[in-house]
Amino acid sequence: MKKIAVLTTGGDAPGMNAAIRGVVRSAVYNKLEVIGVFRGWWGLINEELKPMDHRSVSGIISQGGTILKTSRCREFYTEEGQNRAYETIKKYGIDGLVVIGGNGSFTAAQKFTAIYKVPCIGIAASIDNDVNGISMTIGWDTAINTALNAIDNIRDTATSMERIYVIEVMGRECGSIALAVALAGGCEDVIIPERQYNWEDVCHSIVNGNIRGKISWIVVVAEGAGTAPEIAKKITDMTTLETRALVLGHIQRGGRPTAISRDIALNLGKMAVDLLIKGESNKAVGIQGNKAVAVDFETAIKKKETNVEEIYNLIKIMS
Amino acid sequence: MKKIAVLTTGGDAPGMNAAIRGVVRSAVYNKLEVIGVFRGWWGLINEELKPMDHRSVSGIISQGGTILKTSRCREFYTEEGQNRAYETIKKYGIDGLVVIGGNGSFTAAQKFTAIYKVPCIGIAASIDNDVNGISMTIGWDTAINTALNAIDNIRDTATSMERIYVIEVMGRECGSIALAVALAGGCEDVIIPERQYNWEDVCHSIVNGNIRGKISWIVVVAEGAGTAPEIAKKITDMTTLETRALVLGHIQRGGRPTAISRDIALNLGKMAVDLLIKGESNKAVGIQGNKAVAVDFETAIKKKETNVEEIYNLIKIMS
Amino acid sequence: MKKIAVLTTGGDAPGMNAAIRGVVRSAVYNKLEVIGVFRGWWGLINEELKPMDHRSVSGIISQGGTILKTSRCREFYTEEGQNRAYETIKKYGIDGLVVIGGNGSFTAAQKFTAIYKVPCIGIAASIDNDVNGISMTIGWDTAINTALNAIDNIRDTATSMERIYVIEVMGRECGSIALAVALAGGCEDVIIPERQYNWEDVCHSIVNGNIRGKISWIVVVAEGAGTAPEIAKKITDMTTLETRALVLGHIQRGGRPTAISRDIALNLGKMAVDLLIKGESNKAVGIQGNKAVAVDFETAIKKKETNVEEIYNLIKIMS
Amino acid sequence: MKKIAVLTTGGDAPGMNAAIRGVVRSAVYNKLEVIGVFRGWWGLINEELKPMDHRSVSGIISQGGTILKTSRCREFYTEEGQNRAYETIKKYGIDGLVVIGGNGSFTAAQKFTAIYKVPCIGIAASIDNDVNGISMTIGWDTAINTALNAIDNIRDTATSMERIYVIEVMGRECGSIALAVALAGGCEDVIIPERQYNWEDVCHSIVNGNIRGKISWIVVVAEGAGTAPEIAKKITDMTTLETRALVLGHIQRGGRPTAISRDIALNLGKMAVDLLIKGESNKAVGIQGNKAVAVDFETAIKKKETNVEEIYNLIKIMS
Repeated sequence: MKKIAVLTTGGDAPGMNAAIRGVVRSAVYNKLEVIGVFRGWWGLINEELKPMDHRSVSGIISQGGTILKTSRCREFYTEEGQNRAYETIKKYGIDGLVVIGGNGSFTAAQKFTAIYKVPCIGIAASIDNDVNGISMTIGWDTAINTALNAIDNIRDTATSMERIYVIEVMGRECGSIALAVALAGGCEDVIIPERQYNWEDVCHSIVNGNIRGKISWIVVVAEGAGTAPEIAKKITDMTTLETRALVLGHIQRGGRPTAISRDIALNLGKMAVDLLIKGESNKAVGIQGNKAVAVDFETAIKKKETNVEEIYNLIKIMS
Repeated sequence: MKKIAVLTTGGDAPGMNAAIRGVVRSAVYNKLEVIGVFRGWWGLINEELKPMDHRSVSGIISQGGTILKTSRCREFYTEEGQNRAYETIKKYGIDGLVVIGGNGSFTAAQKFTAIYKVPCIGIAASIDNDVNGISMTIGWDTAINTALNAIDNIRDTATSMERIYVIEVMGRECGSIALAVALAGGCEDVIIPERQYNWEDVCHSIVNGNIRGKISWIVVVAEGAGTAPEIAKKITDMTTLETRALVLGHIQRGGRPTAISRDIALNLGKMAVDLLIKGESNKAVGIQGNKAVAVDFETAIKKKETNVEEIYNLIKIMS
Repeated sequence: MKKIAVLTTGGDAPGMNAAIRGVVRSAVYNKLEVIGVFRGWWGLINEELKPMDHRSVSGIISQGGTILKTSRCREFYTEEGQNRAYETIKKYGIDGLVVIGGNGSFTAAQKFTAIYKVPCIGIAASIDNDVNGISMTIGWDTAINTALNAIDNIRDTATSMERIYVIEVMGRECGSIALAVALAGGCEDVIIPERQYNWEDVCHSIVNGNIRGKISWIVVVAEGAGTAPEIAKKITDMTTLETRALVLGHIQRGGRPTAISRDIALNLGKMAVDLLIKGESNKAVGIQGNKAVAVDFETAIKKKETNVEEIYNLIKIMS
Repeated sequence: MKKIAVLTTGGDAPGMNAAIRGVVRSAVYNKLEVIGVFRGWWGLINEELKPMDHRSVSGIISQGGTILKTSRCREFYTEEGQNRAYETIKKYGIDGLVVIGGNGSFTAAQKFTAIYKVPCIGIAASIDNDVNGISMTIGWDTAINTALNAIDNIRDTATSMERIYVIEVMGRECGSIALAVALAGGCEDVIIPERQYNWEDVCHSIVNGNIRGKISWIVVVAEGAGTAPEIAKKITDMTTLETRALVLGHIQRGGRPTAISRDIALNLGKMAVDLLIKGESNKAVGIQGNKAVAVDFETAIKKKETNVEEIYNLIKIMS
């Protein structure tokens, strides 16, 4: 292992820059050459690369987004695209690849490395926290604090104007953001893809609260379980109470990464390089508990197994 | 003037609590009794009041929303509603009223005081900054920083993924928030109710930028000039470029008030009490330049006169 | 178990209010009566208590500090003080005690419960993160983000003016804050109580960096390993380079708790009540990995065992 | 006027980067060449310059510090230093200079331009807000919000532990930061260089508050009026009450600039370029009220005239 390349793919997540720093500085420390690839797989296909050194990653640790840029590249899913990417890898003498991204990125990496035998380690970075076998991905901690700030703000108005709000947060297949912020925000209910809901129960508790004099109410919904406007309408239809909808959207993607998002990113960056040096491949690294672990791509990309009932019950007890 | 009442009406704005503190502490200092009215005019009609003292306003200066709550009360627009409000005022021996709110509040206050001759001073609190004769209302500075945080976050993703975003901020009749954040956020364009737009020009500059290699783009729109999804669709239709829409919505209403939102609120709270003591009525207080001024309700509720061209040109030069 | 009391002692930590909420709402859910004790042990001795219900803890989840107030109470370390505390417990029919605090609090609780046999569960809340057997205490995550904000700010000036800064963070016996923020802040060195330092090495690396053209430098020091002014002077003496000292101090104690500080506080509040109901005592609850665990007071108050070399090396590689 | 240079000198202030952007983009818009000078006057003396264009200032608007770096350069106060600076100006064909900084910078600029007749416009950037004739400098609004955050945090602990704190903020000759944050933070007293204090009165009000049951207390002090430890000791000596001292220091210099700090910086950057084009010189631009104004250097560097009694009284009424 003499020369590695690093790229970021899929949706950006705060802490990706810290992960790039982790990879680059660790590579330099181990006397490896390191090449940055722009716009994810697209940059491999189109030969958009630049050599990186210690200084290339100065001052980026506190910045959201990714200095290497990212994209969702369909061409890489074709044989021709993969071939061209492999040509670039050969041409530049790249011995190993670090792929910073989420499930989609790992699926692509797994297929690519199965065919072309390029050693490849993934770093789990995704605000959705939906990587199986990994309890915390890079970016999730920042995203939940951004969403929580928004919910705290809405709470001011919900309390002052005595209103019901439905707030949609990110999470296509995974209610991880929704559960964390509904609990931390003292929200009254949460709708996630992992649970079945009885809408009569949801509305019943709102109406009951209303009768007891509780007239401000916040319901958090993960995007994978419905849109905020849909659910607000459903609540209004069933309760006749005015309900406001708010979609937080992409503000959850950006921003200065939190301490934890940065710290784990640096850790995982180093671990990815260490694994490549040891000859490992086909694995994603992430945090499980408070330890950095490596999980086979095959496991990582499976549907995340989580027990949501315990935290759901906690939210209901605490609201 | 021995006893005054204070209420908050219309949409809440960060710094309203500081304004309540300003009124109460200033009243106590001047040995006036002071009564808090809950839920705006509704509380006058329905006799929801409580006496306030120095301690009632401890620890609220840093909180968003309003501890007196607020509402949009239709009943107060009827003769019967106003009569009942006046009955409450007589019953409790209230000699003067401080109304913390925006244009709608001042319109209602003006009508009420014209008929019932209750001395009434308004305090300009509105995130929209749409009070005529006043350059800065309570809450606006906080709202622009909240919106700017969101735009900075979006910028991370817009840059990393090279996308066009349309971001909708508050401002029904007034582009004050939109202009301030478009400039501070380095945004490429801004759509406000005070200006006519030639859509071909707007799109032309995007396409031209795109040709020059500039592929991330943020357009800010004030709600009164169109919705983000509408404008995103228009841009996509005219340029064929993928465009994302984001509505910031009510997160702009809440949150810890900034230093300026608090400082002006305390100033204006004191000024409102001082004016009532001096026998003044029918005026709104607010900040003009960096001074507290009083403006007749009649002037305050007129359409705000502003010169938007200068700042619009600045935004275009700076983007 | 029919009636429990809850108190906060020692230094306040952000999330203590969320922990109080966790205890109270969980107790209400389990149909226990719950009493809040003011100013920690002092309130037990001086009979400052008040019954709490579901509403008593509304709106506190997002607030720093503790609504029950806290103190460092010497009287409780005397037999007479403990006797009087016990009299209060008997008088009010309190069947169990939840003590929210750190090591000092658990030491006192352990002694008290050994003599008076009052069931007692601790909740680990301490910004220092110095409770043995527990990887994350309530408040630590907030404190590291507050300290990191400060360091990011200093970095702006350190880079712009090309200066060396020594920044002192909290941590009397434990470098947990220092290590987390030195890594996340991209700091060049960190001085903690758990490690021996060779000052010639520390200064040598500064001088060497300086020769290579690196003239901004941030060294983080945990208070238990020295004061910032001392260490700044030492560096200046040995390198002749101008060095600035900054003590972050108590700004690290307060502020809105982060999502994680709140979420773990609510979890641990529930767990403490559940343990009391099960007849447990003499244990502190905290987070280990990402699970809530209970640790005997005896273990919890021992010197925390941590492997600091790994993270120290990571900091050096990444800087 | 075909080519201008821009530099930042003295202490950095948040928004300096936005001011650089304002100057550069405005120069480009007016088809001027623009050169960035590194490390203030030092860069003129030592010929550290680089041409800047539209892209050079991309993405810096949200960053604290200054990308051009800054320094306090003694050599520029000598004839030889000024001569060498002038040689650089001639060599590069620089027709005008924009100096972003505070009073010290304007004093130096005034002397330099008097001798060498190089047109020179200053932009008032200083967190201290101590430029005469100008009500708001670039950076002040950000600094007061940073200091206010810190004070809000301290308030949590002051209230929870019932303590007296003395908090030192920046302001060598000017209490502008101290007054703004003492008011916004609900602080009980403020010590500034512009006022004489009767220490017996200060302590008397603390003791009196203490007797009435008020035991948390925050006194803000501007650095020019004394150090926090000195004043804390004085209070303890006179009242026997335990008092904690905290020095906020350089955390007030850095950080993401607020919306207002950015907006005024862009405005002033444009105004500086416009004035150079018009043939003006020897003036500092800043905000007075809510308008951009130009003030002769001679006026700007005089001791700032302010009426502090009104705001001091407001602080005392509101606390």
